This record gives sequence, structure tokens and C-alpha cells, in this order.
Amino acid sequence: MTALDETHDPTASSWVDGADDHSEFPVQNLPLGIFSTGDGTRRGGVAIGDFVCDLGAVAPLLSGPAAEAATLASGATLNALFSRGNFAADALRTSLFGLFTDISSKAEVSRFLHRMTDCTLHLPFAIGDYTDFYTGIHHAENVGKQFRPDNPLLPNYKWVPIGYHGRASSIVPSGCDVIRPQGQQKNPDGDAPLFGPSKRLDYEMEMAVWTSGSNAMGQPIPIGEAGDHIAGLSILNDWSARDLQAWEYQPLGPFLAKNFNSTISPWVVTSAALAPFRIAQPARPEGDPAPLPYLSDAADQDHGAYAIEMEVLLSTAKMRAAGIEPHRLSKGPMSAMYWTAAQLIAHHTVNGCNLQPGDLLGTGTLSNETPDTFGSLLELSEGGKKAIELPGGETRTFLQDGDEIVMRAHAVREGRRTIGFGECRGRIVG
Amino acid sequence: MTALDETHDPTASSWVDGADDHSEFPVQNLPLGIFSTGDGTRRGGVAIGDFVCDLGAVAPLLSGPAAEAATLASGATLNALFSRGNFAADALRTSLFGLFTDISSKAEVSRFLHRMTDCTLHLPFAIGDYTDFYTGIHHAENVGKQFRPDNPLLPNYKWVPIGYHGRASSIVPSGCDVIRPQGQQKNPDGDAPLFGPSKRLDYEMEMAVWTSGSNAMGQPIPIGEAGDHIAGLSILNDWSARDLQAWEYQPLGPFLAKNFNSTISPWVVTSAALAPFRIAQPARPEGDPAPLPYLSDAADQDHGAYAIEMEVLLSTAKMRAAGIEPHRLSKGPMSAMYWTAAQLIAHHTVNGCNLQPGDLLGTGTLSNETPDTFGSLLELSEGGKKAIELPGGETRTFLQDGDEIVMRAHAVREGRRTIGFGECRGRIVG
Repeated sequence: MTALDETHDPTASSWVDGADDHSEFPVQNLPLGIFSTGDGTRRGGVAIGDFVCDLGAVAPLLSGPAAEAATLASGATLNALFSRGNFAADALRTSLFGLFTDISSKAEVSRFLHRMTDCTLHLPFAIGDYTDFYTGIHHAENVGKQFRPDNPLLPNYKWVPIGYHGRASSIVPSGCDVIRPQGQQKNPDGDAPLFGPSKRLDYEMEMAVWTSGSNAMGQPIPIGEAGDHIAGLSILNDWSARDLQAWEYQPLGPFLAKNFNSTISPWVVTSAALAPFRIAQPARPEGDPAPLPYLSDAADQDHGAYAIEMEVLLSTAKMRAAGIEPHRLSKGPMSAMYWTAAQLIAHHTVNGCNLQPGDLLGTGTLSNETPDTFGSLLELSEGGKKAIELPGGETRTFLQDGDEIVMRAHAVREGRRTIGFGECRGRIVG
Repeated sequence: MTALDETHDPTASSWVDGADDHSEFPVQNLPLGIFSTGDGTRRGGVAIGDFVCDLGAVAPLLSGPAAEAATLASGATLNALFSRGNFAADALRTSLFGLFTDISSKAEVSRFLHRMTDCTLHLPFAIGDYTDFYTGIHHAENVGKQFRPDNPLLPNYKWVPIGYHGRASSIVPSGCDVIRPQGQQKNPDGDAPLFGPSKRLDYEMEMAVWTSGSNAMGQPIPIGEAGDHIAGLSILNDWSARDLQAWEYQPLGPFLAKNFNSTISPWVVTSAALAPFRIAQPARPEGDPAPLPYLSDAADQDHGAYAIEMEVLLSTAKMRAAGIEPHRLSKGPMSAMYWTAAQLIAHHTVNGCNLQPGDLLGTGTLSNETPDTFGSLLELSEGGKKAIELPGGETRTFLQDGDEIVMRAHAVREGRRTIGFGECRGRIVG
């Protein structure tokens, strides 16, 4: 884990407009992403206050590993930067912190700041492979109950960090519309499936881990080193068509129910920025098995979880037309993960599978125990049986055309400066 | 479908050494791939007889679209070439056929031929996403019977082309060793899973479709256009750890049981080369449902299947030491696919999922009805219960260290010149 240093000082202040007031991007955060401005050229940037700083442009003001890192980040993706592991990005962060806190840098650095509202934000990485896990044990129980009331969790759940491969090509950055998928749906009492637009379109509130560095095929990443392969985190909305999913998923898992679209927040909140928010993994309930040795690490149990608060907001077309604020569907901590991010990486590679920089690992839906924390409509509506009441008089069981979901997340801990992830936003279109 | 022309003439002859005698790479084939020689630079090539012709080097001898295609294929992957759909590759094939059949070209073209034994063959594409289907209905029945003797096929099988996402990063070209994966295994009578090297390591004989062109997110590829997105075929060995698979796969499908390694044959046998081998899709058995409209196309039913013969050979370390020839485990036609390649593409995109050039679609294991055609040891050994006898006195239920699997395939049809796919070879190491 990254040691805390001056870059984590909660009292540190920046000369960049908005940084000190900002719950998302104060100088303690400095998340990395890919942006473009008028000419459309994609390049690396860092978010600070209300601005994006162009990394390639600022590179000449830096020296040593930080300058090299900024140059590596000057292209259209962050893959090259994180091919070095986290070392280069960490050096960059430390130097940028110096620039943004030193008023004497203001004149020369300001030239490379772009107002964020003038920027288009893109995917931070060319995603080689996307894996989605299922670490949210309350989500797994809530969904399992709908199919198996007496035995919601399958026997492997507490032994195996359950995961499956997702589609990389259809991951889009926040703000892209989501086209309602068509597909086969089977009514329980029908003889044959029907075909048409999904009627049970849902979101899933997840966090996602970006990987850094790599491992050769056949060379597992030990649990004690797995944390070093976490480049950072973003918010992931794993849109899901529940009717397609129910009919297609046996025996090989979800496919068209998921791969039409997944939305990711565009900023990579780095491991270094998240260091002050690492907390102990919640103890396993009495009677649960201990993880197998390849998943066991005392240090990881001690600080492998994150103090992150997530929330999901819905606005409908009618609400927006009436000037009604988005309605919060849920809010809860990220602590519902039965496995830590390091355990996911150790598990993913224990068979020799090779990870590459910029792979994306979804946590799975992170519901907590009470309904106000549930991370999907499937859970909130109890499988579509219970309508959710919205301000303005509408109700929802699943998403309708025009509905917009916004997910937000903040790392929050007493004595630390809160940092944010930016938005993960998507609107359903028919 | 590509119309037949002079490039399919079974009597056509080439001046290139070995081409006329070759069951793999006569001038009627001209498969594309990526190769390197002494200096290690990866570049596009075409197989002809015992040679690989360097496409970038030969480009100046071509003109128009063929010259442009050869230049597009001069880099380290074929993605750029097939980003144009099949048009560019088709033009290239026609021109190359002209060069290789015209003796007056021999002097200038020979300079660009490399003896295949001097070449290293690489992955033909940077694979964006890999999807594995489950079209082999006899395989699905054979495997299903081991779990559900009375009801081997699930209710969705004859409606939905079942598929799931696989891992792209661990796909390797023929000839790479396969490191036996470790993982969790659960004995039926055990309380807890065990951990260690897989004891039930298997191969799966599949064919694979490379995609060409692309579709925008939200824009399905209609069944009538899907065939135009087939760049060509290769052989795929979807190595599988059956013990890991049995314990991990519910509810989200196979993961570590598959993603440690998949082997692909390095040559893309193009749609144009396969045109003479397109045959009618076998009629569905009486009582099976008709495909839904988005999967229905009379022309596709009329010629959507392939006249391809596949075989699997095993040699053990002991057999090789004793000079015993590889033992054929199975041989059978590719006709066991319940869905055509075009149906897979139409299904994959019907929800709006975007395909990109160089995506890989596995057919799933293609067993036929009789054991001499079964495409996996799981089927041949009846789940490990029946030992397979090998020449030299050894037996196998699953693969042991040192075992080498070679898969071969040929397009064969009366009145046509047989063409081959090259090898898909891999050896297990502990």
C-alpha cells in the first residue's frame, strides 16, 4: 500500500480555481483520464478543481520519472503509463501536487489548464479484457432469493470469487446514451420465447478496478503483490436486461443481457489518492470458511477495503421537464464486497491467466443489507413486483425510455479530505 | 456469398514450390496471417505451398485495391485490412492468385517468399473480444447427459445461440506450450474444496470465425448481411480444466477453467477461399422450432454451413520417445453446428452489441453423433470413467504433462481442390 505523505495532507490547498471547494477533485485527488478539446485529439489529463490539466503539455515543466510519466500519458490512452505498474503514475502525482500547490507555478501551468466544461472525456484505457465479479454478497443473496428462497447463495460463493468475462467493446464513458436492447424473452407460461425490446431494463451500481502492470501467462500474481496491480478505481454501471438474462443465462452465464452497453466514469482515481481511504476488510460472519491460502494475506485483510460512499440517482423525462431534481434510489458504502480487490486479482491469475495494464475488473453490484442501499432495480422492485414511487407521481419497476441514471461515489473518512470519482451517467433511448 | 471464379478452379497450378502437392496451401487457398523471420518484425503474409509471401514487400507489384490491401496488411496485425470488410482482402487474393499462377512473375515474386520453416507465425489479429458459442448440439447433449441424464439440453438451446465471453489476452498461436492451471476443485463428497494443479485437463475441438468490418453500437447486423462479416476461419482449441469448471461455473459460467490458455491456428482461411465449400445447413430435426425471424434467412440455410473435416491427434512424451506416430482421437465434419456462423453474428449483435474487425467467435466443441467424432476427452472418456487406450500401452482419461494435442482441418468437397488450415498444436507442461 502507498504510504501517506504530504500529498494526502487534508489541509493542502491549491491555487487552481474551484479545487479547494471541490468535493470531487481537490488537490488530494488528481485522478487521471483521457480528454479532448476543440480539435478532438485525445490525450491524457488530470482533473483539478474545475479544470483538466494537459499532461503532455505540462511534461516539460517536470523532471525525472514524473516527466517521463507525463509523456507516457500524452497519448490517446493511459495503457502505456500503467504498463510501468504504479510507479510512474505515483511520481507524476507527487510532482503535480507540487505544481498545483505552489502559487509560483500558477503563471506557467495555467496555460495548460482547460475548463472541464470545455472538455470531452473518453475511456481512460484501451480495455484489453473486462471481467465482472460478483463480490456483493447482499446482492447475490437478494438475487438468489428470487430464484431459490431457501438457499440463495450457491455452495461455491464463500470459497470462489465468482466472476465471468464481459464485453470490452461496448464499454462507454459517462454521458453516452444507452439504446434499449432487443432480444428473446420467455414468459414462464409461454411455449415459445417472444422477441422485442427489453421490458426489464436495469442498472447495476458497481465500482471497477483498473489494473496496472502485467503478469506473464502461467505466472500467478501472489496475493501479497496483488495490491500493486491496482491502478485505481472508477464507477461502473453494468446495465442489464433482466428478461433477456433470465432466458439466456443457462448454462454459460449472461451474454446479450449485459454486452449491449456498460458505462464507466472517465476518471481513474489512483491507488495513491485512495491510500488514506484503505480500511480493514469486514470480518467474515461466524461460520464462514477462511479463504484458501492463495487468497489469504493479513495485510490485505487489514487495509484491503475502501471507505467509499456510492449513490444512485434517477431522473425521468417527466421529472426533468417539470424541473424536479433527480431522485436518489440508493446510497451506501462499498464495504459489501465479500472479497477485496487484491483477492480478485490473485484469484484471476492463480490459473496463470495474464492480466494486462488497463484491464477492467468490475466488483459486481454492491448492495448493502437494507433496501435504501440496494444497487439495482431488480432488488429495489423485488423482481418487478413492487413499484418504486418517484417525485412527480410516477412509479418505476424497471427503466423506461428517457430515464437517466447518475451514479456518484466519494472516498470519505474522518480526518481526510473527501475526494470524488465524477459522474457515471447514462440515459435510456428507445 | 462470394461468387466462384477462376481463383477457385481446382485445376489451377502454381509455380511456387510445393503448392501443387500441398493439401494445406495450394493456390486456391491463400490464407492470411502474421509472420516474422530473423529480425522479429511482425508483418502480414500469405501462405502458398511451403512458403510465406511477405505482403508489404509484394505490394509494389500490385495495383489498385489489391496494392492498398497488401499495404494495409504490412503491419503487425490484420485488423486494418479487415476494417474494410472483406472487399480489400478479396481483391488481394485475386491479384495474388494471378502472381502465383503466372510463371512470368516468378523471378520478381520469389524474392519475397520465405520458407515457412524459417518463419515464426503469430496471432493474425489483435483480438478485441473473444466470444465462445455452444453450437455443437451433440457436444451439448453429451455434456448435458453427464449432469441431467433425462433432460440433457436446456429449454433455451434450440431458440438461443448460447454463447459467452471468453478471455482475449490468453489466446496464443499454435505451438505455444500450455501450462497446467492451478485452481480450486471440489470432490462431491468433500466438505471443502481442494487447491492444486488441475487433474482433469482437456482440449476442445472448435472452429473459429474471425469477423470483418464492424457495426455501430445499437445497430444490429441483419442475418442477410451477417455473412459479409465473416473474414475467415481458423481452428481453435479451447483448453478446459474440467475440475475447476465443475466447481466454479454456477451461476455465471466458466471462468478460470478456460481463460488460462486457448490455442488458435495462425492462418485465416478467408471467406473467399471457402466459397466452394459452403453447403446447406442440415435440416433441423422434426419437431424442433423454426429459428425466430432475426435468425432466419433462406440463403443462409442454403449455403451457411461448411464442408470442413476436422481431426484431433494426441502424442504423449512416451510415444514420442518411442517413435510412435500421434494417435488420432477423433475425426469428423464441421456440420454439427446447430447454428450457422451468420446466425451467430446476427444473434451477437441483435441487442446492439458492436463487433469489431478481428473479433473471434468460437463455434463451441464440434462433436458428431458417434464417439469417433467426439471433440473432447470429457466425452471420449465419459467424464473420466472410461480410459482411452493409446498405442504403446498407455491410457488416458484426461491430459498428462507432456501430452501434445494437434488439431487439423481441411475443406474437402467433390470436384474442389482441398484446402487446409495448418496446425493448431499445443503441449501440456507442468
